Amino acid sequence: MNIVDIINKKRVNKKLTHEELDYAFNGYLNGTVKDYQMSSLLMAICINGMTDEETFDLTDIFIKSGDVLDLSSIPGVKVDKHSTGGVGDKVTLIIGPIVSSCGVPVPKMSGRGLGHTGGTIDKLESIKGFNTNLTEEEFINQIKKIGFAVTGQTKNLCPMDKVIYALRDVTGTVASIPLIATSIMSKKIAGGADKILLDVKVGDGALMKTMEDAKALASIMERIGKAHHRDVICEITDMNVPLGHNIGNSLEVIEAMDTLQGRKGKLYDLCLDISANMISLSKGISYDEALSEATEALTSGRAFKKFEEFVKMQGGDLSSLEVSNQTIDIISNKKGTLKNIRALALGELSVSLGAGRRTKEDSIDHSVGIVIHKDIDDKINVGDKLATLYVKDKNLKLNPDDYFEIK
Amino acid sequence: MNIVDIINKKRVNKKLTHEELDYAFNGYLNGTVKDYQMSSLLMAICINGMTDEETFDLTDIFIKSGDVLDLSSIPGVKVDKHSTGGVGDKVTLIIGPIVSSCGVPVPKMSGRGLGHTGGTIDKLESIKGFNTNLTEEEFINQIKKIGFAVTGQTKNLCPMDKVIYALRDVTGTVASIPLIATSIMSKKIAGGADKILLDVKVGDGALMKTMEDAKALASIMERIGKAHHRDVICEITDMNVPLGHNIGNSLEVIEAMDTLQGRKGKLYDLCLDISANMISLSKGISYDEALSEATEALTSGRAFKKFEEFVKMQGGDLSSLEVSNQTIDIISNKKGTLKNIRALALGELSVSLGAGRRTKEDSIDHSVGIVIHKDIDDKINVGDKLATLYVKDKNLKLNPDDYFEIK
Repeated sequence: MNIVDIINKKRVNKKLTHEELDYAFNGYLNGTVKDYQMSSLLMAICINGMTDEETFDLTDIFIKSGDVLDLSSIPGVKVDKHSTGGVGDKVTLIIGPIVSSCGVPVPKMSGRGLGHTGGTIDKLESIKGFNTNLTEEEFINQIKKIGFAVTGQTKNLCPMDKVIYALRDVTGTVASIPLIATSIMSKKIAGGADKILLDVKVGDGALMKTMEDAKALASIMERIGKAHHRDVICEITDMNVPLGHNIGNSLEVIEAMDTLQGRKGKLYDLCLDISANMISLSKGISYDEALSEATEALTSGRAFKKFEEFVKMQGGDLSSLEVSNQTIDIISNKKGTLKNIRALALGELSVSLGAGRRTKEDSIDHSVGIVIHKDIDDKINVGDKLATLYVKDKNLKLNPDDYFEIK
Repeated sequence: MNIVDIINKKRVNKKLTHEELDYAFNGYLNGTVKDYQMSSLLMAICINGMTDEETFDLTDIFIKSGDVLDLSSIPGVKVDKHSTGGVGDKVTLIIGPIVSSCGVPVPKMSGRGLGHTGGTIDKLESIKGFNTNLTEEEFINQIKKIGFAVTGQTKNLCPMDKVIYALRDVTGTVASIPLIATSIMSKKIAGGADKILLDVKVGDGALMKTMEDAKALASIMERIGKAHHRDVICEITDMNVPLGHNIGNSLEVIEAMDTLQGRKGKLYDLCLDISANMISLSKGISYDEALSEATEALTSGRAFKKFEEFVKMQGGDLSSLEVSNQTIDIISNKKGTLKNIRALALGELSVSLGAGRRTKEDSIDHSVGIVIHKDIDDKINVGDKLATLYVKDKNLKLNPDDYFEIK
């Protein structure tokens, strides 16, 4: 077997065998296949796609590149949840406490943010002392004790995904549905949960820009789950506007706490819906029954208590949350109705304020970000405050029209 | 500008601007764009293609990456000839002397062979003392004096082509018509000839496997020529069977000399045809007039004398040509008619005998090779000698059916 022959085969859109995929990807992991060969193969996959069988095979290769977490010592049906990421997505911080406070164990491995989408680990690190680097033992013990833990990926979980993702990121080969599905599902399966809820974001601020792509991604991820004997449920949710009102690390933790303390709105509704699906998946009860359990967990304050317990157990001090004291307001220069809040533009703005990374090496500022004051369909007057930016550098000229569409 | 954005643009099959191509390719040449990024872009170009404008722009970038040879001090209309390569292709060694002995200056820069197609420079190096590394001054002076010179590419001609070709070779991105056209035409234009005759090989033993692809390549090369104000004529010739009877370096020089001394056959006819086209292109006379000039050069012995003069002038000693004295015959085990001589298989066999390179670092043996004794449509009996291999190692078991189709 020869890597150039394998690349040429994919270039002319022929199906690769398990053996060929194994030769190429494990060859890359152990250094016999070079990065310039892998990126060429990845581009051919991006453009020509992969069949279901190829995608199942590649997921299998990704999983076997590292360890598989064994969560069998934790009683109950473990449910993992994954979102394909978006601007202002702090859902994990809300549904973890809700679902675990209803008796469903939630083992959550999360990542760091790159580009305009944030990462849960970064958000949690805005809490001083919070340990995002649990050992496998600490992770399992915490779930046994309080039902919920969040940690960065343990070292040996899908090492293939780490190296392939890093290469895709710099070679224009991110936007491939089979590669995205392989990346997500291999980590979820290796993560050891029994059932998986997937939240596929669609729209301007998400990886999937169209409903058609989002449906295709959801569908192939469900089929990968089936091939690996895991129940998978996919939800497709809108990401044309940011999720909630706050963007930026500390600001998002604060909004998650507000929501857990009963602040209503779209984010509140979405989190209840996802929680209900997870509870229903784990307990085998109806969605409606699960929804009333989730609602009760929120309204009774049990979920918020679980959040506090979770932060404390991982060493975090909630009183340490810091938000920059320098602000810039985005003021409307138009009268009309708010038609659109541009998620992608606000996500990029947040990165440029310092809340996110452009490259993996960038450090981030947890105290900066954006708070949006208006919702879609709100009536707007000239002079209204549309958003407040929490910044370190006040010398910033902005055009409201880049972020808010008022007509 | 950002290389990932440029790659993504090509991935979704959008046209790149001159500025974007320049950023990517010159970035690669100077190290700011990485090889894994360039290979990803090259694969996207392979699959999605390039528009004419992109191809013209890229050719321009390739040319400007190095020096352009100034041949204006040589009187007359200089004609260059390029073949897209094939098994047993010694045409340059025959048409150079024919055309130059008719008064048309032929400045010829040639390459080394890689894989199953040989290179003119390697063939000439089987003549002891032959200098394939002329300086620009030596090259021009020799053409002024005797009308014909062959040299390896001078150092500063299209350095971009060298690095891109080396990367394409190991990343499955060779088979792209716009990239092949860019590579050939940038070198031809930088080589400084006024008019260019292109011989596009088609078939089993050639880079272009189908007539459709060969026509597409010929057509884009003519259009590139036009965009750079060079007259270009393309011939498409068959390369399903090897060109002539000899494959291997010394053996091919010997066959070129035989042809120049009047040995008839397909090779003789093809060389007269190409010579006539080149003479007609340079002198502005009809093909028939040019053909009779070329024929007269051959039959009078003037072309062969020019060949001897050319070898002597570049320091070569023709009496030094060496052919291995160990041979293996390929004997027919069938009775019938010779339907096909498999060029690709014989080319690969010749490489495995030591006559060619698998990687750029391989050294080659000038004395080994293959002489084919039969032509298509010949009647064959069991026991007939089909070919003789000149080898260094007689322990070789061959199946005649792999190389000759007899029915």
